[in-house]
Amino acid sequence: MLVLAAAAPLCRADDGYRLWLKYDQLGDSPQRTQYRAAAQFIAATGNAEVLKTAAAELQRGLQGLLGQPVPVVASAAGDTRRGIVLAIVPAAKVFGSPASLEGYRISTQGRNLTVMGRSGAGVLYGVYALLRQLQTSQPIAGLNLSSSPRIQYRLLNHWDNPNGTVERGYAGSSIWKWYELPQRLDPRYTDYARANASIGLNGVAINNVNASARYLTPEYLQKVKALAGVFRPYGIRVYLSVFWAAPKVIGGLKTADPLDPQVKQWWAAKSEEIYNAIPDFGGFLVKANSEGEPGPQDYGRTHADGANMLAAALGTHDGIVMWRAFVYKAGSSDRFKQAYEDFKPLDGQFAPKVLVQVKNGPIDFQSREPFHPLFGAMPKTPLVLEVQLTQEYLGFASHLVYVAPLIKECLDADTQTKGPGSTATKVVDGSLDQHRISGIAGVANIGTDRNWTGHPVGQANWYAFGRLAWDYTLTSAAIAAEWTKMTLTREPQAVATIVDVMAKSRDIYVRYTTPLGLHHIMGQSIHYGPEPWLAEAGRPDWTAVYYHKADSLGLGFDRTAAGSNALALYAPGVQKQWGDAKTCPLNYLLWFHHVGWKQPLSTGRTLWNELVTRYYTGTDSVAWMQRRWATVKPQVDAALFADVAARLQIQQREARWWRDACVLYFQTFSKQPIPAPFVPPTRTLAEVKSLVDLYQLK
Amino acid sequence: MLVLAAAAPLCRADDGYRLWLKYDQLGDSPQRTQYRAAAQFIAATGNAEVLKTAAAELQRGLQGLLGQPVPVVASAAGDTRRGIVLAIVPAAKVFGSPASLEGYRISTQGRNLTVMGRSGAGVLYGVYALLRQLQTSQPIAGLNLSSSPRIQYRLLNHWDNPNGTVERGYAGSSIWKWYELPQRLDPRYTDYARANASIGLNGVAINNVNASARYLTPEYLQKVKALAGVFRPYGIRVYLSVFWAAPKVIGGLKTADPLDPQVKQWWAAKSEEIYNAIPDFGGFLVKANSEGEPGPQDYGRTHADGANMLAAALGTHDGIVMWRAFVYKAGSSDRFKQAYEDFKPLDGQFAPKVLVQVKNGPIDFQSREPFHPLFGAMPKTPLVLEVQLTQEYLGFASHLVYVAPLIKECLDADTQTKGPGSTATKVVDGSLDQHRISGIAGVANIGTDRNWTGHPVGQANWYAFGRLAWDYTLTSAAIAAEWTKMTLTREPQAVATIVDVMAKSRDIYVRYTTPLGLHHIMGQSIHYGPEPWLAEAGRPDWTAVYYHKADSLGLGFDRTAAGSNALALYAPGVQKQWGDAKTCPLNYLLWFHHVGWKQPLSTGRTLWNELVTRYYTGTDSVAWMQRRWATVKPQVDAALFADVAARLQIQQREARWWRDACVLYFQTFSKQPIPAPFVPPTRTLAEVKSLVDLYQLK
Repeated sequence: MLVLAAAAPLCRADDGYRLWLKYDQLGDSPQRTQYRAAAQFIAATGNAEVLKTAAAELQRGLQGLLGQPVPVVASAAGDTRRGIVLAIVPAAKVFGSPASLEGYRISTQGRNLTVMGRSGAGVLYGVYALLRQLQTSQPIAGLNLSSSPRIQYRLLNHWDNPNGTVERGYAGSSIWKWYELPQRLDPRYTDYARANASIGLNGVAINNVNASARYLTPEYLQKVKALAGVFRPYGIRVYLSVFWAAPKVIGGLKTADPLDPQVKQWWAAKSEEIYNAIPDFGGFLVKANSEGEPGPQDYGRTHADGANMLAAALGTHDGIVMWRAFVYKAGSSDRFKQAYEDFKPLDGQFAPKVLVQVKNGPIDFQSREPFHPLFGAMPKTPLVLEVQLTQEYLGFASHLVYVAPLIKECLDADTQTKGPGSTATKVVDGSLDQHRISGIAGVANIGTDRNWTGHPVGQANWYAFGRLAWDYTLTSAAIAAEWTKMTLTREPQAVATIVDVMAKSRDIYVRYTTPLGLHHIMGQSIHYGPEPWLAEAGRPDWTAVYYHKADSLGLGFDRTAAGSNALALYAPGVQKQWGDAKTCPLNYLLWFHHVGWKQPLSTGRTLWNELVTRYYTGTDSVAWMQRRWATVKPQVDAALFADVAARLQIQQREARWWRDACVLYFQTFSKQPIPAPFVPPTRTLAEVKSLVDLYQLK
Repeated sequence: MLVLAAAAPLCRADDGYRLWLKYDQLGDSPQRTQYRAAAQFIAATGNAEVLKTAAAELQRGLQGLLGQPVPVVASAAGDTRRGIVLAIVPAAKVFGSPASLEGYRISTQGRNLTVMGRSGAGVLYGVYALLRQLQTSQPIAGLNLSSSPRIQYRLLNHWDNPNGTVERGYAGSSIWKWYELPQRLDPRYTDYARANASIGLNGVAINNVNASARYLTPEYLQKVKALAGVFRPYGIRVYLSVFWAAPKVIGGLKTADPLDPQVKQWWAAKSEEIYNAIPDFGGFLVKANSEGEPGPQDYGRTHADGANMLAAALGTHDGIVMWRAFVYKAGSSDRFKQAYEDFKPLDGQFAPKVLVQVKNGPIDFQSREPFHPLFGAMPKTPLVLEVQLTQEYLGFASHLVYVAPLIKECLDADTQTKGPGSTATKVVDGSLDQHRISGIAGVANIGTDRNWTGHPVGQANWYAFGRLAWDYTLTSAAIAAEWTKMTLTREPQAVATIVDVMAKSRDIYVRYTTPLGLHHIMGQSIHYGPEPWLAEAGRPDWTAVYYHKADSLGLGFDRTAAGSNALALYAPGVQKQWGDAKTCPLNYLLWFHHVGWKQPLSTGRTLWNELVTRYYTGTDSVAWMQRRWATVKPQVDAALFADVAARLQIQQREARWWRDACVLYFQTFSKQPIPAPFVPPTRTLAEVKSLVDLYQLK
């Protein structure tokens, strides 16, 4: 009842709360008739908790989609109707070979459809796959499909704070109500778990990596236990971000030195305490010695010392340590190289339960980054790919930016560390170096806004992350089409239009904000709007000029041997291509080269003219997105349509803001005119700066 | 359509979003038949914007409640059906005498019901009054009722920050989406305006009194203008909290000295700019020289100098300045006296457009305070009463505390400044000193939580504030009954039970947190949980020991002539009663007296035994609230019932927490045993302290 209350399945107008699990009745069609004929009962044998979840979700989905009651029975034996059988079976039956505990097979057996898995979770994933078939109007006659996750640990990382705020969150406040837990379980927790399970996610780090020690106190562990109890029936495990100094802050110890016997003992006892409360606790996520957070280096120890101590504290429990490589000392010559220099030497020193979590790029979730040089550089260490779903650098919740292409760009990158074909994908899934464990993490874009993500299309980023974490071979377009059909409309032309807009959206964003490999030129601290002129900050590598290096000669960060030589961190083949401005892809050009303003590029234009061209055409492309979106109005819920249309207006305005700020600012160095046919900005650089300044006010 | 999307009127399960404006169809009854017969059309003559709002809201409400279409027509002339006529008419017709522009009269004229007002707003308030009759099952046959607001400026004050957080907010984040405005208007803004108008509120200060200068920039004024455009059709005006140093921060001036010609010019020009964008702008709310905020005293000027300068800046526009008296210098002997000492001498120096905004009590929204000594002490100055709806000191969104009795307690207080009967009410409505203008402000308890206020009963505090602002003669119980019938249930026994729980809830909260006049002993900075032992803070008057003064002899702050003599700020009659521990009401005892632990009180118990008795009986009373709530389960929506039941569990746990913390801590001074029949706490003071400490962790 509570879940119904929250999901409000009886609402006609669509407030976005139900995400892609709408289960609205399908229109009258021969196909629906076939679905109805095939789904006259659900047989679920056994008492596995997650299996019951699967049966209940399938019943809910079928009854909604088909508009007919679908009973859940204990067995299909002797039943003459056609139905759907859910079964936990040995591996051989599922795949004919040992396979993931989470995999599933959907097959036609006699008159029934059977959804098999080696675990309740496998069956649950199969159920969502089957529902997806119906939601996307796929035939189910003779259905025979199987799938296993290609990555083992598939997590959302929540940067949620104990005070209810979300660091870099743009969709309201944290959905975790710490003052209400454990007594009150917000119905939203269950709907959150349903959404994650439906896309194959199996873990959640619930608190900010800039962590508070309070989550490790008995008081808060009771709250975390309550959440774990909601997630468990959906095959989701809870992980905690830990504050390194916890043994001092809440343990009363004088040190947090990982090699100190008392510290080891404290963490081991704390781990026992956690597992007593949460038997399936997933493990720890750690941000240490980064951006002011304490860590083992405070005691002259290494990241490996710290990670291994935590791994030891987990004892024999089935948990892991995800240790973030996002570190950069103040004053390093090139922030690009910092994580590599700190972690590469530690390869081989990490305990078996430790995974090192690496962001897709070397700086910090910019709109486009070259793949992180650590991928392929630590063959003895499983690496977790960390991507960001919340749009910290992608226009907050105002800009329509579909991030699947960004994630794929990193996964598809060829590190060449073991010769051509050594893709980041193979590093992450462990196949390149035969690791037993693998992981991927997405920084959540979720908040208390009714539609969860602020921008309705932000839901697609959550959805796409889960789908790619399960199966990175899916194309961005295929995932976008799935999401669109399940969430917005099944009308083919409208689907095609929306998928086209989504597919191009990230490149468009790059063009009007940071084309040609520009990076880190956004507004100070809040990361809103353009501020390429930022020259003073807490640290040089928090300014913009540190990164774009604009001068009278040209633009860009020389990371060749003549410069910071960050390129040397990559395999020879990559160095060779990116190291030569003539062969370096234009998308990465200014990441690695300081290019003369009048230097001709492969496009035939000079750097300056190409730069201006991209800022202008990128901005014009937002108008194109608006025109395309306008065409789907008849096919999309009116409230959802109006929401996206209004946000596109904001995006259009802010694209012009970025364009004007950047071309006017860089023009002070290039001394070049705005090339025809583009019309110079009608406002002055001073006017744009004052607009940016106000967003820096307290 | 957008509004419908947000209001989701088609949801069966109740998520609380619709507040008290549910408009669900009334059950079949003779009364509904009568309603239907009387409401066959709505006639609205004229084009006044707010009149159209009134007609639309009435149509929406009637069609929902009666389950029949109710057409809106231009005139009732010649219509033979029975209907409802909305009309803007001269004062005489409404009241037979000049009366408030916002007043209304509902009367039976021939076959029709007529809702008359001198303005569209008057008619709108009348429409909501008529709908309330139906929602609360009152007869409408021969209906004849009229009402005018007793206070002119009835505002909500939002402590909402530009970053989306709400200072002291416990219901999610700010409902204002600054990054979306002005392009996107969240449908929620309209539902917010409907809710305010339905209870007679006519103004909104949209930003935190700890103000950012950015609201005064052209960029943000466009956003504020967009909100004002949503509120205007509901008779609601927008006000802005201003950052005193704005002329320096965004104006580029070297000073914010109110007597500086350039500063005066800047504010005058800014005021013009605002009125050009928002012709019905309400005015400014100012927190100056308080808790670190800048103000005129930074330049050796007085609060009057600052307020009058702003009033002059408003020029001939119909706007006001609300200047907060909440000031207290660090190191003052008794914070209780600070506001009085700063403002009393300024009485008579304020410009006609200035109102001084005074909190109900002298400290800061404690669970019970004596009325503020400024009430009655500034006869030449209109005073705005400021009360707090967000439960900063009342258990956040976890505790069921109905604040109407707290507000009434202040309004009913007799200042005796012009002899007996000089109530705070007469000060606030201006009648005691014949002021032309009057105001009341409630600090909003609203956020993005789906049900607006976190705790479902928090909605009743929003509702009650509006109703009391309109007519303070209404009783707390009558308002609670109205709200309950409109929001939860109309079943008489359940209504009686819920109203009884609400009526007692505030006294119960006082008993288990701060009985007998204890105050300001809550957790440091976050104001969560008990921390009576707090002795070190940024300022002495931010500690707890500063206020309770517990020692081996006794407990309480001696504010008699033998002590800080704060009592001298009150009229002689009040001094006489409160100055003698024997005649001082026990509810205020420790506000004014340091009482010996073994001192017998009027209850026959010693101070210590009475203190312990109140902590224990108060805590037991929460269990009583739980039992009472359990009885209404069959009559209340399941989701709403479960929500409140769970929060009552939290309240019960935290009541024990307060009880144990306070009796164990004060026992270290009293050296007295816990009197029978009460069972001593099973935990130690150290254990309770460690629990409080963790909520002080970052």
